[in-house]
Amino acid sequence: MPVSGFLADCRARLAFDLLGNTWNSVVLWALRHGPRRPAELREQIGGIRPKVLTETLRRLEFNGLVTRQAYAEAPPRVEYSLTPLGETLLGPIGALGEWAFEHGDEVMAAWPPA
Amino acid sequence: MPVSGFLADCRARLAFDLLGNTWNSVVLWALRHGPRRPAELREQIGGIRPKVLTETLRRLEFNGLVTRQAYAEAPPRVEYSLTPLGETLLGPIGALGEWAFEHGDEVMAAWPPA
Repeated sequence: MPVSGFLADCRARLAFDLLGNTWNSVVLWALRHGPRRPAELREQIGGIRPKVLTETLRRLEFNGLVTRQAYAEAPPRVEYSLTPLGETLLGPIGALGEWAFEHGDEVMAAWPPA
Repeated sequence: MPVSGFLADCRARLAFDLLGNTWNSVVLWALRHGPRRPAELREQIGGIRPKVLTETLRRLEFNGLVTRQAYAEAPPRVEYSLTPLGETLLGPIGALGEWAFEHGDEVMAAWPPA
């Protein structure tokens, strides 16, 4: 096939789009140790607006990566957790995060002076 | 720190933005076996417009991930290759590409019927 292997189909584009939205990756990563309530996620992540967190969780739910569980308590409690599919993304996210930690400064150093 | 570890700094955002542009990943991947001329890249990738390829190569060059080498021949020859920094991204790109190959269908299956 005349394409660069496994990267040129729509599954790959989907995967890169998913991680290209950094909030998706940050929220998936924040759920790696187990279920979390939205307020816990906000605290853990820091600097994410509630509206953005809600949108991100909906998007991840839509794509089958997280599930929402509502408990009929007073006050009502809602928790989000990774699906088995969402857990499979932790590896690639971790690989890219480690790369960023190790090499991000080199990318910025390559930029021409402003 | 109140953030989800290594993912919430600007280096991580940069890395996810870089791979979030799928063409960046596709072109880096297409260069993994050595220098290529633009026409070779177009053929290898398939379905990338020349203008988009040029923009992608400029962006990758700007970020220190590829280098451009011009040879004073007749006709002039230009080749692009990965920098050592660009080579370090092949691991994360491969991990995400493999994930997409293995799990992309599950994401699409999660979408509600249109």
